[in-house]
Amino acid sequence: MSLMRHVTDCNRADLADFHPFHVDGRRLGWVRSRVARRLADFPGVFQVDRQAVTLAETLTTPEARTAAVAEVLPRLVEDGLIGALRGEPYRVTTAWAAPDAFTLDRAAASLFGVLSFGVHLNGWRRLDDGRLALWIAQRNPAKAVAPGKLDNLAAGGQPAGLSLRENMLKEVAEEASLGPEVAQAMIPTGAIAYRMATGHGLRRDVLFTFDLEVPADVTPTPGDDEVAGFHLMEAEQVLCRIRESDDFKFNVNLVIAHFALRHGLLSPDNEPDYQALAHGLAGPADL
Amino acid sequence: MSLMRHVTDCNRADLADFHPFHVDGRRLGWVRSRVARRLADFPGVFQVDRQAVTLAETLTTPEARTAAVAEVLPRLVEDGLIGALRGEPYRVTTAWAAPDAFTLDRAAASLFGVLSFGVHLNGWRRLDDGRLALWIAQRNPAKAVAPGKLDNLAAGGQPAGLSLRENMLKEVAEEASLGPEVAQAMIPTGAIAYRMATGHGLRRDVLFTFDLEVPADVTPTPGDDEVAGFHLMEAEQVLCRIRESDDFKFNVNLVIAHFALRHGLLSPDNEPDYQALAHGLAGPADL
Repeated sequence: MSLMRHVTDCNRADLADFHPFHVDGRRLGWVRSRVARRLADFPGVFQVDRQAVTLAETLTTPEARTAAVAEVLPRLVEDGLIGALRGEPYRVTTAWAAPDAFTLDRAAASLFGVLSFGVHLNGWRRLDDGRLALWIAQRNPAKAVAPGKLDNLAAGGQPAGLSLRENMLKEVAEEASLGPEVAQAMIPTGAIAYRMATGHGLRRDVLFTFDLEVPADVTPTPGDDEVAGFHLMEAEQVLCRIRESDDFKFNVNLVIAHFALRHGLLSPDNEPDYQALAHGLAGPADL
Repeated sequence: MSLMRHVTDCNRADLADFHPFHVDGRRLGWVRSRVARRLADFPGVFQVDRQAVTLAETLTTPEARTAAVAEVLPRLVEDGLIGALRGEPYRVTTAWAAPDAFTLDRAAASLFGVLSFGVHLNGWRRLDDGRLALWIAQRNPAKAVAPGKLDNLAAGGQPAGLSLRENMLKEVAEEASLGPEVAQAMIPTGAIAYRMATGHGLRRDVLFTFDLEVPADVTPTPGDDEVAGFHLMEAEQVLCRIRESDDFKFNVNLVIAHFALRHGLLSPDNEPDYQALAHGLAGPADL
């Protein structure tokens, strides 16, 4: 099996079943048609027609929009359209560097099909024989999201109000017990993206990647209940397992394929999907 | 000025002025409408209508296609539509890992708007203070292509019949006098792509990138007449010069921006174009 199938799996979406979600003249998201019909029940907040869902034009400030949408969310939780609210405000915007239109509880990001930003940390080191190895987390089997799956050293969604680096440092401290004395050596190494239909919505994720060379005398240990444990795995074995199984969390396959491309673990002469991976990991043009 | 402007400059193309170029039912290139009219003068080789240029269906083998097109090329040189033939056969295909439809002289690649593959080598090392530096070539001011511009340690178009790694090793030996005892440490690090209109055609380039950590006691020296000399430049200074000038060969700006993303020289928190660069360097979806 191939690495590329994971990119394909993360990019399955038929936008014909979605309404664009407009705020102040900008398309900021996509809403499933049947969800759009439900949002029409809140005419003070959403204007819904056959073409689009538009946030009420009377809501002119980020604060007013945030408050008005937040009032609707508990009803959507009752409907079962979204899970329990997370209390984590996510930015709603057209791109990382663009201004916010408003903020939205993390639990509702994919229901509105807004961009969602995240940070992923590849922890790596050289084994004594020179081979590259990765610190891989095994997720807690009792967690709701991807229970028991394999994961990066640390990762997390990006809340409003933190820089990406601050968030990455916070996640690796919480999840892997690595403080800044170790983690500050991490470097940003790019971004991947994908667009993926979910049961009630659309995930449009941009994941900023970081690499950390973990010193040989440092062993990450779980710091919260996200992770059951960490394993140092030879990188070629990680790639083999990604090719042959679905043992890794769906989007972590992409983050590690991106790492493998950058670190020379794949050869354009031997990997038939090399060109497709280099292009596909960047996500769709109209993400 | 920005890094992203170079990506934008490398992706200026209005396909409305081009005919698709079909071979055996696959679109393999794009031909300017006025060039298409000229190709109609060779009806045994090209079928031309208002919609497309199609290679004659009587040409069923790669060898027959290669020979038939090659016979036309001297006439296009006489017309001034292409420069002198190079004697370097380029593969004509839909992707690096796809089978060849035929081969075409390098000089004609952009006239037919076929994919063109290349290899670029970033030569880098750490300075004593830990900062990253790049070995930068200054191109021969007497050469026809990009005279006097700054360039990667080595680069070249990809001829049919060599692997990408073989070609990269050959180029760095020829251009920078670095033999395999040094150059074999290079690693493949991904690919960038762009689509760019030219006077008579369309460049559709996929550049496979390699990184080589050059030992501190090794100094590249020109091995042929491509390069006038090499300079070790601090990487932040290279980026600054790329942002502020057009001193680098047009596509080398993209290769080094890609290097900078991968090596943590850009921060997603400080570089407004970070997300756009990560996406844009991968090239258009319908390259």
